[in-house]
Amino acid sequence: MFFASDNSSGVAPQILDAIVAANAGYTSGYGADALTKRVEARLSEMFEREVTAFLVATGSSANGLALSVLTPPYGVVYCHDHAHIQVDEAGAPEFYTGGAKLWPLPGEAGRIDPAALDHVLTYLQRGNVHNPQPAVLSLTQVTEWGTVYSLDRIRALTDRAKAAGMAVHMDGARFANAVAALGCTPAEMTWKAGVDAVVVGGTKNGCMGVEAVVFFDKTKAADFAFRRKRGGHLFSKMRFLAAQMDAYLEGGLWQDLATTANARAARLARGLEGAGVRFAAPVEANEVFALMEQKEADALRAAGAVFYDWPFGAKVRRFVTSFATREEDVDALVAEVRRMRKAA
Amino acid sequence: MFFASDNSSGVAPQILDAIVAANAGYTSGYGADALTKRVEARLSEMFEREVTAFLVATGSSANGLALSVLTPPYGVVYCHDHAHIQVDEAGAPEFYTGGAKLWPLPGEAGRIDPAALDHVLTYLQRGNVHNPQPAVLSLTQVTEWGTVYSLDRIRALTDRAKAAGMAVHMDGARFANAVAALGCTPAEMTWKAGVDAVVVGGTKNGCMGVEAVVFFDKTKAADFAFRRKRGGHLFSKMRFLAAQMDAYLEGGLWQDLATTANARAARLARGLEGAGVRFAAPVEANEVFALMEQKEADALRAAGAVFYDWPFGAKVRRFVTSFATREEDVDALVAEVRRMRKAA
Amino acid sequence: MFFASDNSSGVAPQILDAIVAANAGYTSGYGADALTKRVEARLSEMFEREVTAFLVATGSSANGLALSVLTPPYGVVYCHDHAHIQVDEAGAPEFYTGGAKLWPLPGEAGRIDPAALDHVLTYLQRGNVHNPQPAVLSLTQVTEWGTVYSLDRIRALTDRAKAAGMAVHMDGARFANAVAALGCTPAEMTWKAGVDAVVVGGTKNGCMGVEAVVFFDKTKAADFAFRRKRGGHLFSKMRFLAAQMDAYLEGGLWQDLATTANARAARLARGLEGAGVRFAAPVEANEVFALMEQKEADALRAAGAVFYDWPFGAKVRRFVTSFATREEDVDALVAEVRRMRKAA
Amino acid sequence: MFFASDNSSGVAPQILDAIVAANAGYTSGYGADALTKRVEARLSEMFEREVTAFLVATGSSANGLALSVLTPPYGVVYCHDHAHIQVDEAGAPEFYTGGAKLWPLPGEAGRIDPAALDHVLTYLQRGNVHNPQPAVLSLTQVTEWGTVYSLDRIRALTDRAKAAGMAVHMDGARFANAVAALGCTPAEMTWKAGVDAVVVGGTKNGCMGVEAVVFFDKTKAADFAFRRKRGGHLFSKMRFLAAQMDAYLEGGLWQDLATTANARAARLARGLEGAGVRFAAPVEANEVFALMEQKEADALRAAGAVFYDWPFGAKVRRFVTSFATREEDVDALVAEVRRMRKAA
Repeated sequence: MFFASDNSSGVAPQILDAIVAANAGYTSGYGADALTKRVEARLSEMFEREVTAFLVATGSSANGLALSVLTPPYGVVYCHDHAHIQVDEAGAPEFYTGGAKLWPLPGEAGRIDPAALDHVLTYLQRGNVHNPQPAVLSLTQVTEWGTVYSLDRIRALTDRAKAAGMAVHMDGARFANAVAALGCTPAEMTWKAGVDAVVVGGTKNGCMGVEAVVFFDKTKAADFAFRRKRGGHLFSKMRFLAAQMDAYLEGGLWQDLATTANARAARLARGLEGAGVRFAAPVEANEVFALMEQKEADALRAAGAVFYDWPFGAKVRRFVTSFATREEDVDALVAEVRRMRKAA
Repeated sequence: MFFASDNSSGVAPQILDAIVAANAGYTSGYGADALTKRVEARLSEMFEREVTAFLVATGSSANGLALSVLTPPYGVVYCHDHAHIQVDEAGAPEFYTGGAKLWPLPGEAGRIDPAALDHVLTYLQRGNVHNPQPAVLSLTQVTEWGTVYSLDRIRALTDRAKAAGMAVHMDGARFANAVAALGCTPAEMTWKAGVDAVVVGGTKNGCMGVEAVVFFDKTKAADFAFRRKRGGHLFSKMRFLAAQMDAYLEGGLWQDLATTANARAARLARGLEGAGVRFAAPVEANEVFALMEQKEADALRAAGAVFYDWPFGAKVRRFVTSFATREEDVDALVAEVRRMRKAA
Repeated sequence: MFFASDNSSGVAPQILDAIVAANAGYTSGYGADALTKRVEARLSEMFEREVTAFLVATGSSANGLALSVLTPPYGVVYCHDHAHIQVDEAGAPEFYTGGAKLWPLPGEAGRIDPAALDHVLTYLQRGNVHNPQPAVLSLTQVTEWGTVYSLDRIRALTDRAKAAGMAVHMDGARFANAVAALGCTPAEMTWKAGVDAVVVGGTKNGCMGVEAVVFFDKTKAADFAFRRKRGGHLFSKMRFLAAQMDAYLEGGLWQDLATTANARAARLARGLEGAGVRFAAPVEANEVFALMEQKEADALRAAGAVFYDWPFGAKVRRFVTSFATREEDVDALVAEVRRMRKAA
Repeated sequence: MFFASDNSSGVAPQILDAIVAANAGYTSGYGADALTKRVEARLSEMFEREVTAFLVATGSSANGLALSVLTPPYGVVYCHDHAHIQVDEAGAPEFYTGGAKLWPLPGEAGRIDPAALDHVLTYLQRGNVHNPQPAVLSLTQVTEWGTVYSLDRIRALTDRAKAAGMAVHMDGARFANAVAALGCTPAEMTWKAGVDAVVVGGTKNGCMGVEAVVFFDKTKAADFAFRRKRGGHLFSKMRFLAAQMDAYLEGGLWQDLATTANARAARLARGLEGAGVRFAAPVEANEVFALMEQKEADALRAAGAVFYDWPFGAKVRRFVTSFATREEDVDALVAEVRRMRKAA
C-alpha cells in the first residue's frame, strides 16, 4: 500500500532495458551521441512540429533552466500559490533566473484563477523601471492538486499572458498523465494552446531520472545549452539520459504508463468514495486528495499504508498512484478504509 | 500644487548647509571619517541602545542590503502585496539576497493581515530541504497606503515571526513620519516591538540621498560591510552622506520635518473631506489616497496639480506632502477641488 | 582506439548490476533510503573517520556546490590556470557561489606553483572591505595535465592556505586514479594533508553518473543540502545514485578500476616513448599528453584513433585511458604511431 | 601633505555651487528632470557623436553595471592583474554580471600585455558549451599604476578583442587625467579606438559622487536602466547627480581640474627624482609610485605625510595628487624627503 509518490516507484522494465543496452561500447559524451539526436526527432514527431529539446535529470533543474531563458533577472514569473516551483524547489527558479520574482496566485483546486491573474497584471507596468517586469506565466499540468487544466482553461490563461507580452511555461512533471486525462494530443495541450516551453517529465512516470525541456520556438531556447552546463546539468554520459527518454517515447510507452497510473487513481477514488471518503479536489489524473481525520490517517498508516499529509489544506491526505501500482494494492487500501469506517 | 512625491522636494536648508560645511579639507574616505563615527553615536542615542549602522544613498539599496544579511539565498521574505520591496525596486531584494523569495501577503490599507501570515506559515516546513525557508518578515512603516502600524499591530506580527524563527525587517523610508504619527519613541517602534533591522530613511524627508540601515544585534549585521562594497554602495566621499544624516539627527530635525509633512497631509485630508472627497485609506502620515474619477483627476491636473494615479486600486489618486509643502499649496489644491465639485 | 575521454566509456558491469538490483520495490525518495545511508558509512570507513557526504550526478555540480559552502559570494577561490573549475564548467563555480572570484595561478604540469600562491596572497587583505576575500584553495587531483600532486606538494599548498585562513577543496574527478598512482590511503591524500572537502569522482572511473562530495568537518558542510536541492541536484530516485557509489566502494572496486586505467596509460606512454614520441607532461595516472605535429595527428585519426587536441599547449594531444581500455587497443595505437614514424 | 587618494579631496567649488543651485523647487525624480537631459546632450557633444549615458554615484557600480550589459553570466571579462574591478571592488563585477568570470592578465606598469591576451584567447572556444565565453576586455585608463595607454596601445588591444568577438569596457575613474595626459580628444581615446562603453569618472576629479556610464551603441546599453534600478543606483533626487556632472562638463572644467592634478604629480615626480627617489612606474598622470624603504616611509609619515603602501610591489608607496593639491604641499613633501635622504 505504497502511495507516497509516483517517484518512489522504480523504473519501468522497458526503460531499464534501454539503459542496459546503451552501455555497449564507447560514445562521445555530453549529448554528441546518436541516441540524443534520435530523442529530439522523436519529440518533434510527438509534438507535430520541429522542436528544440534538452535533456536533464531532475524536474527542478528542468523548470529552473526553462525559466532562466524566458525571463530577465528582473522579471516576474506568475504561478499558483502551491506551484512546485514556488514551494517545493527550495528556490531553484530564483537561483537559475538570477533572481526573478515568483508571484503566487490563488485558484481553486490548484488551477490559477484567471481573475487573479487579471488583477495582478494591473500592478506592474511594462517598461516602468521601478517595477519588476511581467515575463512568464507558469502552469503546472497536472496541477499540484491532481487536477488538470482543460484546453479552454489553458487558453484562457495563455491569452492573458500573451496580451501582457509574457511567455508561457508549463511544468509537465506529470505531462503524460495530463495528456492521458484530457485525451488530447501533446500539441493541443501545448503550443496549440499558447505554451512556449514545456517540461516533459519522465521521472515520475517510470524513468530513472530524465526530463525533456522542449521549446517550440528555437529563438526562445536562446542560450539554454550554456546555462545547462553552468548549472552542472550536462551529463558526460548523456547516452543514459537519452536511452531513457528514447524508450519512454517509443511506441507510446509514456502514454501506456500514464494511463495505468491514472486508472489506478480512478479506481482508488471510486473505492474510497464508496467507503464514504470525501475529497479536497476532483480526481482527474494519478493523485487522490482525500479528507481524513488525523486518527483515521494514523490508523491507516499503522495498517501499512504510506502517503503524505498535504500541507496546503486541513486534514488533506495525498495518495499517488504510478505505473507500478497494482490493482490489488488499491483494493487493499480501500478495504482497509472501509473496514475502519465500519468499525467506527 | 506639487504632490507627486516627497522625494520631489529638494533638500532642507540645514542639511544642505551641513553638506557645504563638510567640504572643507581632506578626509579619509569610505567611512573612516569623524562625521561617520558621530552618526553611529547619534543613532545609538536615538534608539536608546548601542546599534550597528551603515549609511547608503538610496532606499532600494538599504532594503536589499539589509535583507541580504537576514536571509540565506533559499529563504523567504514575507511582505505586503504592495510593499515597495515587492513592486517598486525592480527586484533589488532578490538581487541582493542572491535569489531569496519574496512572498506577498494581503492586508487592508497596506498592513499585512496577521491571519494571512498565519496561513502561509503552515505551508513551508523549516528544515525541509524541498521548501524555501521562512527567514524574514518585512514591514513597511509608514505603509505604502499611507497608514501606520500601531505598536500593537507591529507586535502581533513580530511575535508570529519570532515564533517561526524569522528575523524582522522594517522598511522605514518614511520612518520619521511614522514616529511622528504614533507619538512614540524610535525604540518603541523598533527593537522594543521585535524589529531586528530598520532602514531609517532620510531622502524622502529632506535629505539629499541618505538612509541608515540600523541593526540592534551586531551579529545580525554580519558581513554587511562587504556586501555594501560589493553592491557599489560604499561611497569614497562618505563624509557627504554622513553630513546629511548628522544634520538630520541633530536637535530632532528629522522629527520637525516629518511633523510638518504629516500636518500638511492632515490639512489636505480635512480640506478634501470637506469638499466631499472620499479616501481609499485612512490618512495617518504624509500621504492622502483620494478617490477621484478620471475626469476630475484630469481637470485637476489641467489646473496645475501634480500627483500619481495609484495602481493598486481603481480611481485612487495619491497626494504626498513633504517638509517643503506649504499650507497655501494645500489650500490651493483644496480650493480647486471644491470649485470643481461645486461646478459639477 | 578510443582515447578521447574516460567518460566516453560505459559503465562497469558491477555497477550496472547494482543499478538493476536497486530497481526492486518502492523506496522513499530524495536520499531517505537505506542505500544512501550505507554509502555514507562506506565513505566514513574509506576515509578512516566520520565524514559528511552528499551524492550528486555530475562533477561540475559537485565542485560548484562544494565551493558554495566554503566561500562567501565575495570570496576568492584560487586554482590552477587550467583547472576544470576555471575553464571547463562554463562558470558553474561562479554560479553556485553567487559570484565568487576564481583566481587562476600558473604552475608546471598542471600543479599550482606555491610561489605563485605566495605572491597573490600578498595582494588581498583579509578584512579589507575593498578586497575580495581569500576563501578557498582548490586543487585538482589528478591534475588537468595528468600529473599527481605528491603528499608533500599537497601539504606545501594547504599549509599556505591554512595560514591565510582559507579552506581547501580538492576536485577529485580522478580521485581513484590519484590514490592508485600515489599508493597512499584516501585519508593521507585528503584530511591528513589539509583538505577540507573532496569530490570523490565515480563517473570517469566506471560509474554511470555519480560523485560524492565529502566534508571532514560537519560544520563546513553547512547548508549543502539546501543548496543541492536549490541547484536541482537532489534526485527523487536517489537510490540509483547510491547504488552506483555503493558498488563502486564495495571491495575496493574503485581502486581496481583506477589501477587498470593507470596501467593502460603507463603502457601507452612506454610504447609511444619507444616510438620516439615526447610528452608535454609526465605520465602519472591515466592520461598521456603527447607532442605530435598536426600532420601526424591527422594521420592517426584517419587510422581510427580518437583523442583530443589540448588547447593549453601547442601540438599537445591528449590520450585518456579508462577501466575499459584494453591492452590491445593500446598496442594498436602504439603500432600505428610506430609505423607512421618509420614511414616518415 | 595629503597624498592618500584623489577621492580624499572635497568637491570643487563650481560643482558644489551647482549642487546648491539645483536645490530650488520641485523636480520629477529618477532622472526625469531637465538637468539629466542636458548632461546627456553634453556628453554627446564631448564625444562628438550621439551617446547613451547613465549617471550613478560610485565607480564600482558604474563598472559593475556597464559589465552587466556586456557579458552573459557565463562570460569572461579579461582585465589586468591589478585592475580595480579585479582587486578593489569586493567582487562587484561578479555580483552585477550574475557571476561572470574575471580573468586577470599580466602586464608591465598596469598595462595589459597584448601577448598575454593572445595567449589566453587560445584557451576558450567560443561556442564550446564547456567553456566560459570570452565576452569583454576591460582596460583601466589611467591604469592602476598611474600610467596611460597610448592610443596605439589601446588599439592593439581592442583589435584583438574585436577579432575575438568581445566588447571593450574602459574603466575611466581617472578618465579626465588620461585625456589630459594624452592630449587627445575623448572620442579618440574611446570609440575611435574601439571602446564600446566607458565610465567617465567625476568623483576622483572634484565631484561629490558621480560617474557617467557612456555607451556608443544604443543597443549595447540594452537593459541598463532596469539593472541600475535593481542595483539600487537610481537616485530619486537624481538632479543632484546631474548637477554635478553638468557643472563638471561645462566649459571644460573636467579638463582644467585634471590638468592641475597631473601637473602636481609631475612636479612631485621631478622633485622626488631630484632627491634621488626611484619609481616603480613612469609618472604619466596624477599618481606617483615611489620606491621607499619602510624606514623612510615611516619617517615621512611621522613628518605628516599621508600616502598608501601599494600592495602589488615591494617597497612601493603611492602618492596621489588632485585638483586640490597645492604646489606648496608638493614642495613640502619633496623638501622633507630631500632632508631625510641627506641626513641618512
